[in-house]
Amino acid sequence: MKAIVVEPGTGEPALVDVPRPEPTPGEALVRTLRVGVDGTDHEVIAGAHGDVPPGDDRLVLGHEAVGVVEDANDTDLVEGQYVVPTVRRPPNGTSNEFFDRAEPDMAPAGEYVERGIAGAHGFMAEYVTSPAEYLVPVPDALAPLGFLVEPISVTEKAVEHAVAARSAFDWRLESALVLGNGSLGLLTLAMFADVYDVDRTYCLGRRDRPDPTIDLIDGLGATYVDSRETPVSEFADVHEPVDLVYEATGYPKHAFETIDALAPNGVGVLLGVPEPWEFEIDGGRLHRELVLHNKALVGSVNSHRGHFESAVDTLAQLPEEFLDDLVTGVYDLENFEAAFETGDDVVKTAVAFDKI
Amino acid sequence: MKAIVVEPGTGEPALVDVPRPEPTPGEALVRTLRVGVDGTDHEVIAGAHGDVPPGDDRLVLGHEAVGVVEDANDTDLVEGQYVVPTVRRPPNGTSNEFFDRAEPDMAPAGEYVERGIAGAHGFMAEYVTSPAEYLVPVPDALAPLGFLVEPISVTEKAVEHAVAARSAFDWRLESALVLGNGSLGLLTLAMFADVYDVDRTYCLGRRDRPDPTIDLIDGLGATYVDSRETPVSEFADVHEPVDLVYEATGYPKHAFETIDALAPNGVGVLLGVPEPWEFEIDGGRLHRELVLHNKALVGSVNSHRGHFESAVDTLAQLPEEFLDDLVTGVYDLENFEAAFETGDDVVKTAVAFDKI
Repeated sequence: MKAIVVEPGTGEPALVDVPRPEPTPGEALVRTLRVGVDGTDHEVIAGAHGDVPPGDDRLVLGHEAVGVVEDANDTDLVEGQYVVPTVRRPPNGTSNEFFDRAEPDMAPAGEYVERGIAGAHGFMAEYVTSPAEYLVPVPDALAPLGFLVEPISVTEKAVEHAVAARSAFDWRLESALVLGNGSLGLLTLAMFADVYDVDRTYCLGRRDRPDPTIDLIDGLGATYVDSRETPVSEFADVHEPVDLVYEATGYPKHAFETIDALAPNGVGVLLGVPEPWEFEIDGGRLHRELVLHNKALVGSVNSHRGHFESAVDTLAQLPEEFLDDLVTGVYDLENFEAAFETGDDVVKTAVAFDKI
Repeated sequence: MKAIVVEPGTGEPALVDVPRPEPTPGEALVRTLRVGVDGTDHEVIAGAHGDVPPGDDRLVLGHEAVGVVEDANDTDLVEGQYVVPTVRRPPNGTSNEFFDRAEPDMAPAGEYVERGIAGAHGFMAEYVTSPAEYLVPVPDALAPLGFLVEPISVTEKAVEHAVAARSAFDWRLESALVLGNGSLGLLTLAMFADVYDVDRTYCLGRRDRPDPTIDLIDGLGATYVDSRETPVSEFADVHEPVDLVYEATGYPKHAFETIDALAPNGVGVLLGVPEPWEFEIDGGRLHRELVLHNKALVGSVNSHRGHFESAVDTLAQLPEEFLDDLVTGVYDLENFEAAFETGDDVVKTAVAFDKI
């Protein structure tokens, strides 16, 4: 069967033949339909993140997948059922406390591998196997966009943790700023505007109009904030201090400037994964501001099955027009390279392994 | 009646005569018994924090009080009942949403005054009046140490918010590091060790043995950490990464070094109120660490009536020997200056306005 792999050092994905996997007991065989491409994939391809499975010399890419159960293999799944696989798996085939309590997203480094990213092959192959417990059913109508369930689940978790951090008092999420106009930032903005009913939403980018991401922001009724005109540190003065800041840029100054963009009692949730970088901050002022105005910063990574299930519900509620414009390309295997191209006219892409 | 005031610019407390207050409808008259002294009082005296009530030229000090109801004045209180007053009041005599929902601790700057600190007279007077809703009953047996209820309540809130921030997953508080061996840090350490049943507790200071604060730390079964030997940034390597860090130093580098002292999925709760200070941090590494290990930082200030009520229960559970050693002096009015003296042999002091 065909698979899209990256060999470390090559810096580009390749279409290759690999053996079709056989499900072991407890696993189902899934025929892959579509697999999304995101920033993490580009980092893995560039060699900046992730690693190949032990003893292997290349990695099958892809962690945002939707497929159909081809062989339920005596699991509770039903053949013909659309499913989305979760990403983390126990390392070395042995479980640990985080997987035992269905919270692999809370496992520290060393206690998990990530399919398509670090230490385990991903889903960009015509067939994949997975333990049934890691396959989340998706209604038929959502299958064509099922590759968006994984990124949405990442925000489901982040917002769940942010809301939990404000649960000891009467907190209302009425305004939110998303830092980053990549596909995750835009999906999150749409969730705030249309699913969580946040009154006033903002999205930070550094693009000139006309631009498809700014059109998406406008279409959601959100306010586009050009970081070249309004840095995060000045956002509150120019617009308003907000109840929640969602950081999806990986630019570490944003993690700390978030404190200034927050309203009293607000929460910043951080998702970016930057490299080390030393810089100066007014740590005294930021510390004081965190304390005197009861602010919080919460880091969040990955997501668990419960977040995937919430994400399926959320996907069903997102505006169809927004989703149509967000997905700028779904490419067949013969044109798979197109799904990895970047540019100002590209928002979200996927590779189609089969017809739906 | 006698009151202890500070006149801005003098840098020292003074015992003066002031008119005895008359309770207005809804207020009770309280005969003051004991009022604790803490770091905030010293900052107010030094002019570094707080301000006098509008139109006044001096401030009655004291925000950690215990008293007895002298005149219930048709409120639900009972004469002879021991009570502890909360600290925040609505500004300008008008309420606002934070007071309406009994969460004055979440009010932003401008939406409150603080008795004995900012904009309202405190409790270091022979009699004080207060709306009955801000007077928290204390059992007779706890009255002599009732001035500890306010500082304990500050930690009740901080820990409530920290635990809330970890409530979206299975989190266990098994190890905790307290930054700061002042009276608030020591009370918090005792709460962790004896009330919250935290297995392993640490307390950071910068003192040489023999020292009464180190004796208190030892007595609680906690580990003393000398910051001159083990900076916070190296704490995790020397001891262990901990589930919770409680910062009560006001030293802003600690706010950020806390991230390194935390175990995966840990939470740092910040209570210090530093002045502006610019310094360099490895913001990229700290941001990455917050995200990849799901860490959180939560600022916390003040406390509400519910926290005072919890604090009364907590005070009853603290070891008697610890409390005896913590309170190094309770001074009558004629020796009130002694309660404001500082030094390595002073831990916690109070002024006694009347016999209990």
